[in-house]
Amino acid sequence: MEFEIMEKIFIEYSSEPDLNDPILIEGLPGVGNVGKLAAEHLIDKLDAVKFADIYSKFFPPQVLVGNDGVVRLVSNELYYYKAKESEQRDLLFLVGDYQGLTPEGQYEISIKILEIAEKFNVKKIFTLGGYGLGRMVETARVLGAATSAELVKEMKDHGVVFQEGEPGSGIVGASGLLLGIGQLKDMEGVCLMGETSGYFVDPKSAQAVLEILTKILKVDIDFKELETKASQIDKITSQLRDIEAKGAETTPDDLHYIG
Amino acid sequence: MEFEIMEKIFIEYSSEPDLNDPILIEGLPGVGNVGKLAAEHLIDKLDAVKFADIYSKFFPPQVLVGNDGVVRLVSNELYYYKAKESEQRDLLFLVGDYQGLTPEGQYEISIKILEIAEKFNVKKIFTLGGYGLGRMVETARVLGAATSAELVKEMKDHGVVFQEGEPGSGIVGASGLLLGIGQLKDMEGVCLMGETSGYFVDPKSAQAVLEILTKILKVDIDFKELETKASQIDKITSQLRDIEAKGAETTPDDLHYIG
Amino acid sequence: MEFEIMEKIFIEYSSEPDLNDPILIEGLPGVGNVGKLAAEHLIDKLDAVKFADIYSKFFPPQVLVGNDGVVRLVSNELYYYKAKESEQRDLLFLVGDYQGLTPEGQYEISIKILEIAEKFNVKKIFTLGGYGLGRMVETARVLGAATSAELVKEMKDHGVVFQEGEPGSGIVGASGLLLGIGQLKDMEGVCLMGETSGYFVDPKSAQAVLEILTKILKVDIDFKELETKASQIDKITSQLRDIEAKGAETTPDDLHYIG
Amino acid sequence: MEFEIMEKIFIEYSSEPDLNDPILIEGLPGVGNVGKLAAEHLIDKLDAVKFADIYSKFFPPQVLVGNDGVVRLVSNELYYYKAKESEQRDLLFLVGDYQGLTPEGQYEISIKILEIAEKFNVKKIFTLGGYGLGRMVETARVLGAATSAELVKEMKDHGVVFQEGEPGSGIVGASGLLLGIGQLKDMEGVCLMGETSGYFVDPKSAQAVLEILTKILKVDIDFKELETKASQIDKITSQLRDIEAKGAETTPDDLHYIG
Repeated sequence: MEFEIMEKIFIEYSSEPDLNDPILIEGLPGVGNVGKLAAEHLIDKLDAVKFADIYSKFFPPQVLVGNDGVVRLVSNELYYYKAKESEQRDLLFLVGDYQGLTPEGQYEISIKILEIAEKFNVKKIFTLGGYGLGRMVETARVLGAATSAELVKEMKDHGVVFQEGEPGSGIVGASGLLLGIGQLKDMEGVCLMGETSGYFVDPKSAQAVLEILTKILKVDIDFKELETKASQIDKITSQLRDIEAKGAETTPDDLHYIG
Repeated sequence: MEFEIMEKIFIEYSSEPDLNDPILIEGLPGVGNVGKLAAEHLIDKLDAVKFADIYSKFFPPQVLVGNDGVVRLVSNELYYYKAKESEQRDLLFLVGDYQGLTPEGQYEISIKILEIAEKFNVKKIFTLGGYGLGRMVETARVLGAATSAELVKEMKDHGVVFQEGEPGSGIVGASGLLLGIGQLKDMEGVCLMGETSGYFVDPKSAQAVLEILTKILKVDIDFKELETKASQIDKITSQLRDIEAKGAETTPDDLHYIG
Repeated sequence: MEFEIMEKIFIEYSSEPDLNDPILIEGLPGVGNVGKLAAEHLIDKLDAVKFADIYSKFFPPQVLVGNDGVVRLVSNELYYYKAKESEQRDLLFLVGDYQGLTPEGQYEISIKILEIAEKFNVKKIFTLGGYGLGRMVETARVLGAATSAELVKEMKDHGVVFQEGEPGSGIVGASGLLLGIGQLKDMEGVCLMGETSGYFVDPKSAQAVLEILTKILKVDIDFKELETKASQIDKITSQLRDIEAKGAETTPDDLHYIG
Repeated sequence: MEFEIMEKIFIEYSSEPDLNDPILIEGLPGVGNVGKLAAEHLIDKLDAVKFADIYSKFFPPQVLVGNDGVVRLVSNELYYYKAKESEQRDLLFLVGDYQGLTPEGQYEISIKILEIAEKFNVKKIFTLGGYGLGRMVETARVLGAATSAELVKEMKDHGVVFQEGEPGSGIVGASGLLLGIGQLKDMEGVCLMGETSGYFVDPKSAQAVLEILTKILKVDIDFKELETKASQIDKITSQLRDIEAKGAETTPDDLHYIG
């Protein structure tokens, strides 16, 4: 085995990619699963390659069961993408089943990820997430926060919205910590937050985030699967509105599990 | 003393059995106590021998008091069974009063158990549990999950049910972790889950699990005590239904403590 | 300083008594504060001498403020009593403001106490506590649990009640752990539990425990202060009954704080 | 980097001031944010200089976002003030976004702060906080607690109120621990607690605390900003009373965020 199983975080590498100044992109579960949907869609469309599994005592003590009945321990995963055109950059993706369950676990995992990032010479980070509004969203804007005023300006030029006092409660979890601790390690970073109701998974918001991010990264992808998922959600939520209108008390319980 | 008491998990061995490629069987408390009832019944019928007590700071800070007034610290226990016929395999049992209280404790204990298992050269694991349906169960099926597609196929031949999307939330606790971490250590494993209401301890479900497991293990046992317990439970639950039918609010409070 | 402040438990000794095979007596806060009241009363009546303060990160992050406005960090304390008559034994007392807040803290503190006890050559332990009945108690019996059948028999001769299936949930906290872990270190021990409602502090129950314990220890004390506290409590609870009888909703809020 | 990022508490120094027997003044978030408001106002008025950021795994896993869209990891901060007149003393301030989230975190952080304080040769500590009364307060008195009877007497001469049995529950958090652990390190200390309703941030109570503290420290500051904040709060609370009088159910939701 290539990992020390008694550590709080143990990493199993299937390969050690040779990357050139890659950009780290994080999309873990969170509000509306916006970040996770966005990062996984990007990984899928770019045919990014998985090269490491991250297990941790800070994750739930749980295995997931695939449709084939085969189990796997809950994990985070690292993928890489090698630039195919001169204007692109190599990419390093962090996605997974869960974030750390405790504040200490959140810190430990983010610090570990940044140590790996340092080994790959990462100097720039994008963290992706949702910004819960507590109400239905017609057109999702993409809010931002960044590690420097220069980056804020640059992101505004890409259509990212910076609104004074938003998000008022700061950014909690990996999307915040990777930037905040990265900053202490002289990495620059941006958090892109797609507006979302926060009531269910939101592929539309993920698409809004990706439309901006792919322009920044100069990669070209289609959004078909996200659009399909979005119309499934739309269908369910309109059913929901009908049900509410009729005063019924039941909820379509598959609503939270798409995505 | 044969253990280091300041460790988070301390193990006291009463003997060191000489086992030949044993199969590890786990049955700790959980949904309907199905796994615990099944493993303890099997230990009892096979006259398996206790050889180690496992104490841990991850268990509740508690002693149990026997009917004779004598206390003992809460623990997990290891038993072994030496094969008596050529078609049988040596067995190593893990049973106990509690599972670890925290996610970290769950991981630490499962990792420690697997380290012990490795010393005994364990390559195969069965974890036993209940699958809560939230409704009364007439005939308990036995659902499965396994560490490989080959094992899934093998288990189907033994009557284990693999149903797409079940269990949707994965397998939480020792029954999941021993498989998931075991997998990383190249051990193969199966989780057998007896369907159960989840409302009370369920000896019938434990019997359903054992009927399959004993065939796989090629051991022959009777189920009398489980059947007796099951009819006690049936009696109480039918009283319960009567009480509910009459609209009374009291509950026979011994219901949860049988088994 | 005589302690290492970065440890999870740090002990400050004011003296190092020379004790001869002392008996350890524990009385920390718990159900009805029975154990704490009993041990503190005994310390007071025997003029036992404080020789150590125990501080811990497992206690609440809190100072208490004395009537003179002076603060002190919450702690546990060790006292000793040197036998004054040939039939008596030296005694070592553990009392304090709090028990450990977490299961792990409970284990760590009990293990540390037993390590200290070992240095003083302790071979016998009495832990004192309350046994909550959830109803008013006329005459408090003293229930017991012990580390061996011989001790159970011996305690029965002293009037301690051993009742099958009681306490059904075992003994939680320091009163349980000191016996359970002590057992692993070949110390023998008894838990004496005074019956109590569990609704408020119970000096009567503490007195019932002490009447048995002082006979075992062959020390002779009076119970005046406990009787005074008990009559204060009686007065308040009878007011409470009056108030309830009148249907009022207010509660004399000093009820929980006597003792 | 000047800090070891894998430690539970990591400190980044921007300078190492040369201080002469400084007094440590703590004002972290707490009841009514009285301590935080008071310490930050004093820092502002004295032009105290920030020289260290304290990050910790015991804080929430969170970045805050400034009005310019730039993030920073949540932290505590150290400031210093060099005495400008012969009757003054050098000052060392501890302020910040959060206190430690867990009891263990509270202990670890307070111990770390005191280790830093020892390096600067701190021998005296003032901790500032609010004393929640659960009712509106017309004129806030300043209650005290101290590490010795001499200090209690000294503080009474400065108008600090010491009232038997108050605070009955002791002092929880950094304001308590810094005194209680400091006491074990032979540092003397005082906690000044401004009376406050506990319902919202209370600049008036902070001013009451500062009026006493500045006399003790022999520094002269004005209270304009606190008075302005106080009148904003007054306005909102009187609106609140109007709303309540009319039976409405809405709450001005900016109430908790001033200060």
